[in-house]
Amino acid sequence: MGKGEETRAAILDAGLGIASKLGLEGLTIGTLADATGMSKSGLFAHFGSREELQLAVLEHGAQHFARQVVEPALKSKRGLPRLRAMFSHWIDWTIASGLPGGCILISAAYEYDDRPGPIRDAVVRQQKIGVGLLEKAVALAVQEGDLRADTDAAQFAYEMFGLVMVNHHHRRLLGDREAYRRSLEGFESIVRRHLPEAAVPRKPAAAAAR
Amino acid sequence: MGKGEETRAAILDAGLGIASKLGLEGLTIGTLADATGMSKSGLFAHFGSREELQLAVLEHGAQHFARQVVEPALKSKRGLPRLRAMFSHWIDWTIASGLPGGCILISAAYEYDDRPGPIRDAVVRQQKIGVGLLEKAVALAVQEGDLRADTDAAQFAYEMFGLVMVNHHHRRLLGDREAYRRSLEGFESIVRRHLPEAAVPRKPAAAAAR
Repeated sequence: MGKGEETRAAILDAGLGIASKLGLEGLTIGTLADATGMSKSGLFAHFGSREELQLAVLEHGAQHFARQVVEPALKSKRGLPRLRAMFSHWIDWTIASGLPGGCILISAAYEYDDRPGPIRDAVVRQQKIGVGLLEKAVALAVQEGDLRADTDAAQFAYEMFGLVMVNHHHRRLLGDREAYRRSLEGFESIVRRHLPEAAVPRKPAAAAAR
Repeated sequence: MGKGEETRAAILDAGLGIASKLGLEGLTIGTLADATGMSKSGLFAHFGSREELQLAVLEHGAQHFARQVVEPALKSKRGLPRLRAMFSHWIDWTIASGLPGGCILISAAYEYDDRPGPIRDAVVRQQKIGVGLLEKAVALAVQEGDLRADTDAAQFAYEMFGLVMVNHHHRRLLGDREAYRRSLEGFESIVRRHLPEAAVPRKPAAAAAR
């Protein structure tokens, strides 16, 4: 990275920290100047407008997510192992992201669901990429024969997404220490429903207690 | 209702509309004055401070929720019918609340997960009430013999909560018209996992396609 890129990356890291706590709406050239000790005019040189800054920070968050959730999962074997890895990295991310306010992508999803404009468009695009990642991982597990051929990948991914959201909610807002374990347990129940006949354990209740 | 109470209720309705779109942080005495045509000083007479206004609007939202989700469910038969009714009213509420920006309670949950203070405390209290309602409804269904005796009510409620959240997210942000149906299907899968042995249908996959 050149000096300019390094500076830009440091600014975006600071912006991500602010946005994860206060939301993208709490991120202004002013709050960022305070956090970085840079001048407002210096920041304007990097980002032409506040909106451009917000969009860049959102994209920066998505790159973090790709590095911490998607890439590590790709190291697992195709099929159910990779699906499992993606899910556990995903629910880890709430804490492991290192962001003081948790997942900026999911906060932005709530912040912008009723604010039309370029930021909402970017948020929708990112969320659809996330949903698509899950669906593709499920479809691959079907292809590999790890899940039944009649698995509805969209339904499977939908239920997984719910477990990601409730994990974030219960863990961050309610301080529920059981959330992570409960999300994993919920995920394994979905998996069990979709195992090929031969692979279904005799006693699903016992298997759930693993 | 006396005249004063009527005015207060009308103000709170307007405040709820603003907060559902812009978040409680978007709700100020100023934005509310614009929306209601009242003077700022008139509003200060009703609510001593902005924070008091925000707390009152949050409580107003919770009362709406009780009327539209909890009370109707109580008309259904104790046990699984009531649990089902509560769930379907809950996922209906996203749209049926009539609030322009959807559920204010869930938006506030995201808005305040990193902002300590009296509003966050109130949000946590409300969310815990919501989780408790679900757990109690599950426990009642167990008591009635509609669900297995070894049902983990907290786990069941946790997974339901996820389906409520993903419904809100997919429907409001992604415009997914399948969300409602998918949440219901996910819920029925959870129910099926917990039916007493005798009640489990032979072919769960076929039952899921209802």
